[in-house]
Amino acid sequence: MKTVKIGILGLGTVGGGTYEILDMNRELIEKRIDREIKVEKVLEKNMDRLKALGLHESQATQNPDDILKDPEIDIVVEALGGIEPSTTFMLTAMENGKSVVTPNKAAVAANFDKLHKTAQENNVEFRFEASVGGGIPALTAITEALAGNEFSEVMGILNGTTNYILTKMTDLGLDYNEVLKDAQAKGFAEADPTADVEGIDVANKLSILMALAFDKYVPPTEIPTVGISKITMDDIEAAKAKGCKIKLIAQAKKVGDSVEYNVKPMEIENAHPLAGVSNEFNAIYVTGNAVDEVMFYGKGAGALPTGSAIVGDILAIAKAL
Amino acid sequence: MKTVKIGILGLGTVGGGTYEILDMNRELIEKRIDREIKVEKVLEKNMDRLKALGLHESQATQNPDDILKDPEIDIVVEALGGIEPSTTFMLTAMENGKSVVTPNKAAVAANFDKLHKTAQENNVEFRFEASVGGGIPALTAITEALAGNEFSEVMGILNGTTNYILTKMTDLGLDYNEVLKDAQAKGFAEADPTADVEGIDVANKLSILMALAFDKYVPPTEIPTVGISKITMDDIEAAKAKGCKIKLIAQAKKVGDSVEYNVKPMEIENAHPLAGVSNEFNAIYVTGNAVDEVMFYGKGAGALPTGSAIVGDILAIAKAL
Repeated sequence: MKTVKIGILGLGTVGGGTYEILDMNRELIEKRIDREIKVEKVLEKNMDRLKALGLHESQATQNPDDILKDPEIDIVVEALGGIEPSTTFMLTAMENGKSVVTPNKAAVAANFDKLHKTAQENNVEFRFEASVGGGIPALTAITEALAGNEFSEVMGILNGTTNYILTKMTDLGLDYNEVLKDAQAKGFAEADPTADVEGIDVANKLSILMALAFDKYVPPTEIPTVGISKITMDDIEAAKAKGCKIKLIAQAKKVGDSVEYNVKPMEIENAHPLAGVSNEFNAIYVTGNAVDEVMFYGKGAGALPTGSAIVGDILAIAKAL
Repeated sequence: MKTVKIGILGLGTVGGGTYEILDMNRELIEKRIDREIKVEKVLEKNMDRLKALGLHESQATQNPDDILKDPEIDIVVEALGGIEPSTTFMLTAMENGKSVVTPNKAAVAANFDKLHKTAQENNVEFRFEASVGGGIPALTAITEALAGNEFSEVMGILNGTTNYILTKMTDLGLDYNEVLKDAQAKGFAEADPTADVEGIDVANKLSILMALAFDKYVPPTEIPTVGISKITMDDIEAAKAKGCKIKLIAQAKKVGDSVEYNVKPMEIENAHPLAGVSNEFNAIYVTGNAVDEVMFYGKGAGALPTGSAIVGDILAIAKAL
């Protein structure tokens, strides 16, 4: 059995979740793809994180080049987050002949073309299923199983924090600030929730979805974006009276030869499949000229769901090596 | 650009839909996979079907061997339906070095091991995404993007006819026979609806899902199966009173080292994502130890949705050729 060697940049929630899955499902994975997946080295300075996962200190480095330039390593998982230095690390890994897997939506959306071009030039793979919808395998579906379709529309509920807040406002009649505080207490919202509640995180994800579905790259900063921080109970009640729910929707659709796109709170009819997507769940709803309407639903965040998508990408690359 | 040559067995609804998609999305497909997909020959005696699709009579044959043994053909699409002669045709195609794509759940479920073994022995691909859930790319998701998961449960609404009937009984308060007649008039149910309403079609699909998710093949005839023909308005009302909807559910779950499985009408709580799957739509709901819960929703039948899945399989094979 061939051994495929992995380097992981960052053992935080997602990097740690990735390691955990590779460890807990090792036997099953080896049986399925006839490859041993070995985590060779991790970039991490917090030794407690290594110990908690059963890794030895000798497997850690604090010098990224020990991974990015190690000729033994086949695949680099970038799980640091943020646009830089993550993008530079990914480019360096590819220039050194390594395939790259990342959940980093900010970096992928900011540098989509550059990252793809570099992968192509170096004849390596660049995969980022986990960057949109966490564990939901929507990107692979769009680019592979649904590749026979011309897409006319992509809609999504792409942020668990805002969907949790809107669900609680709708179901419990509580106002925005009250629910936000509760979400922060439960760990569903960050101490600084701006990127989530103002739709910035969702705009990154829509940028990636559009690039794949429509072959049209729009930088996230150019996507008209409205968050949920101004949504009041009056808005929620007005929607209810019309048989609708307010959801923070990322939407892109073909209109003639151009694509219209935005991120904003929208009233979604209760009968629409997206209206049933509650709490921290995400969903991606796609319309194609062959498949018609199709929706993918699941957990958009969390160590293991996001790790599931990263491991799926690792296995796809490993099988082809 | 490399040309990949296809033979299609049967130009009925699904075979015709496959051709239509390859024709209407030709440019986009060539751009996406850098391959020309050429339908070289079709097995079909009805010349009206050829003409309606813009094919020339010279492209048709009535001798299966003209396709199965043509050294020019790379991929055979088996769209005849039924267990035989479809299975024999698929085996012959593989023995002659061709990859095979099929939507034929009856043949795949009846001969799962034999078909896979023959594909392996001949070093060709055997793909059947369209056999479960029509256009919904659930099988590829289970075997590829979610391959890092150990699955604990698979549930599905896998038959559009029965879901349409149950939805109309629930929403309109009409009884089974009344709705069945209406469904037959609208073309949502066959003149002889037995295979649909008695759950036989669903058992075939569950057999395939279990083989992929649990690596456990159970012949469909050994799956305990109850259909919907005995469901009364009293049952529907009793479910409603409990905040549930009756759905025909295919279910398989791990219990210790074994797998429990059956097809039967079940009361599904309104809050469960499967309760929102209405009319002719299908959904597959999967639980994995990494991804947690994930659901795939879309059209489980029809020329173009089913053709979408077949074309996805063709493109996956063509890219690797």
